[in-house]
Amino acid sequence: MITQEFVRKLVVKNDAKIVLLVMDGLGGIQHPELEKTELEVAKHNILDMLAAKSECGFHYPIGVGITPGSGPAHLGLFGYDPLRYEIGRGLLDSLGVDFEFQKGDLAARGNFATAAYDGAITDRRAGRIASDASAKICKILDGAELDGVKIFVLPVKEHRFAVVFRPSDGKILSDRLTDSDPQKEGLKNLEVKPTIPEAAPAASVINKFISYADEKLKKSSPANAVLLRGFANMIDIPAFGDVFGLRALCIATYPMYKGLSRLVGMDVAKDCDTLISQFEALKKNFDKYDFFFVHIKATDSAGEDGDFSRKVKAVEDVDLCMPDILSLEPAVLVVTGDHSTPAAMKSHSWHPVPLMVHSKCARFNPVVKRFTETEFIKGSLGRVPASSIMTLALSHARRLAKFGA
Amino acid sequence: MITQEFVRKLVVKNDAKIVLLVMDGLGGIQHPELEKTELEVAKHNILDMLAAKSECGFHYPIGVGITPGSGPAHLGLFGYDPLRYEIGRGLLDSLGVDFEFQKGDLAARGNFATAAYDGAITDRRAGRIASDASAKICKILDGAELDGVKIFVLPVKEHRFAVVFRPSDGKILSDRLTDSDPQKEGLKNLEVKPTIPEAAPAASVINKFISYADEKLKKSSPANAVLLRGFANMIDIPAFGDVFGLRALCIATYPMYKGLSRLVGMDVAKDCDTLISQFEALKKNFDKYDFFFVHIKATDSAGEDGDFSRKVKAVEDVDLCMPDILSLEPAVLVVTGDHSTPAAMKSHSWHPVPLMVHSKCARFNPVVKRFTETEFIKGSLGRVPASSIMTLALSHARRLAKFGA
Repeated sequence: MITQEFVRKLVVKNDAKIVLLVMDGLGGIQHPELEKTELEVAKHNILDMLAAKSECGFHYPIGVGITPGSGPAHLGLFGYDPLRYEIGRGLLDSLGVDFEFQKGDLAARGNFATAAYDGAITDRRAGRIASDASAKICKILDGAELDGVKIFVLPVKEHRFAVVFRPSDGKILSDRLTDSDPQKEGLKNLEVKPTIPEAAPAASVINKFISYADEKLKKSSPANAVLLRGFANMIDIPAFGDVFGLRALCIATYPMYKGLSRLVGMDVAKDCDTLISQFEALKKNFDKYDFFFVHIKATDSAGEDGDFSRKVKAVEDVDLCMPDILSLEPAVLVVTGDHSTPAAMKSHSWHPVPLMVHSKCARFNPVVKRFTETEFIKGSLGRVPASSIMTLALSHARRLAKFGA
Repeated sequence: MITQEFVRKLVVKNDAKIVLLVMDGLGGIQHPELEKTELEVAKHNILDMLAAKSECGFHYPIGVGITPGSGPAHLGLFGYDPLRYEIGRGLLDSLGVDFEFQKGDLAARGNFATAAYDGAITDRRAGRIASDASAKICKILDGAELDGVKIFVLPVKEHRFAVVFRPSDGKILSDRLTDSDPQKEGLKNLEVKPTIPEAAPAASVINKFISYADEKLKKSSPANAVLLRGFANMIDIPAFGDVFGLRALCIATYPMYKGLSRLVGMDVAKDCDTLISQFEALKKNFDKYDFFFVHIKATDSAGEDGDFSRKVKAVEDVDLCMPDILSLEPAVLVVTGDHSTPAAMKSHSWHPVPLMVHSKCARFNPVVKRFTETEFIKGSLGRVPASSIMTLALSHARRLAKFGA
């Protein structure tokens, strides 16, 4: 098996630039009436033109028949084995927050809730309290220190927040814990319990924090309680730049993808909120980095909404921006998705994801006339695991030495 | 995963002959102007005719996106996991020498060099001393015995030689050693140091040998010093014949491929220096062996030189010899390369290697009209790891029993 440790030893450095353009949820299934996929209906002449001169095929994000969440799907794209590095839910949800996680951090998702005088939860979302009001409550709780553990309380959206427990004395806080969130109204906040003995110190400090919050929010309304769930430790993951010898920049609009990129040590471009601003950021930073992860969210959102036409349009919008990438003449351009999100299914799916690798070293199949699932079956790449995309990209950039003499 | 241990248990014997025809560096990418690969331009009617009636596809020598050296690439073809059996540089370079390596041998590459009176190296190649002069100096040093270790000094070419340290008392000489070669003129020969404690005895005997050579060559000119590098132990590898139940013959022109074959226990045909003499050797030995590894070097040499036309011609030359193979009616004929060497890249590459398996049991795809990378995409084999070529060959030869009842 080709591991990251193996690839790492072969890495060499040069000036070749690599652009990884990820259309989230790229790849669909045929529309039940049109009998065509989103990519087959969309007009994307530039992607089609590139496909005829590129290595085309598919990648499996995790394995045959496995539908991935966004976390593991992106780890795969970044060249990590997603079965080896698991990102816990509490951590994944906290990644969107602009926060520098450290090794040893323990994160959880939180809700501000409304509790009755006896502690029974009457509203798990505190009436979907407004984001600015929620941020004010976060400030009340943020910065507490209990049992030598520093606690960060970070606003997310409406009633949702993230909480991070950071032990200051080298103590380890394990995430093997039960939730405090009872998931049902009418019930009280549950005591957090360790599921292994080593997690007892973590449970203790978290329960103290819940009591501390109860006390601090006693007079607050409607948010007078915190519900915590999805405890997850920061993962110990090798830095992308170290593994692949690349100065890497993430150019994304959505917080979670920025967070995932930060997690693996990428820099994150600022002020990206539209497709145009993303491609401007690419141009502006092109000399400063070697690797660019450009993340397009609109394709996935449309797929999740079951909006076939909007997904078609989202792909067409990207195609219109392709000249912005091509004019920079990257040595390697990879266009793919993190997983498929067929509009007909309104969800992520297990279908292999279209993958196109464009470089001067491409062994292309000229019969591939379009950037579509059906045409890519004829592509020269076949079907590869997601984690080999980075290996391919590095080789096409001539950034990987040969193995053995 | 299908391991060699697994395959070995299924092996049965019969009279079926297997020919593995390896065109080194087979497989290219499109020529930038012609937009065709070497195989697409070459005229090879017989290979084309066979392709339409064979299982066609590709093999990955090591893994997706990994460029192999010749050593690991051939181990894969021979059915060994190239990640499990690593051939060190000193051993690989020594393989070309006609020498029977034994378990426990420690090999290194050597240069005859010129040193000044104070030991500083003034010429790392002793003026590229002629091969016959170099061979004479090897004779002076060959056969020494120091600390119970027998030392073989074997001429390679010009200033280059190979040295093999063979412990006679069951002592183990580890290859975890630093080089003596300072790699720069003006510096003295470096003391060889162990990088693990267990390598101390090896370092000691090697340093004694360097002093011994200094003494013996004191009056020699211009070669009065030896520089050693790339220490590597003979690998402990199961014999090809034992694993696959085959009497195997290597028919190669280049020393290194003969050496690799000897390393896995194959016999090596003598007096092969042209394509014609290779096919004569095949014919002459056809009754005496079960498996024939025929290695064609010209394809790779042309690719490495970036000579597209010469690579085309090299394939055409092989096609003209195909009747010589076919007239012998082997049960199985496998035609492939060890890795791709696209002329456009002037180097080995990671691109999967065209693979054709011809036998009466082939499930072929009749739409495959040519022996080319593009046509093979439609082939019935798909993409397989190199180490499964032997499994396929054995099964097509009906030399592999079914697994389980």
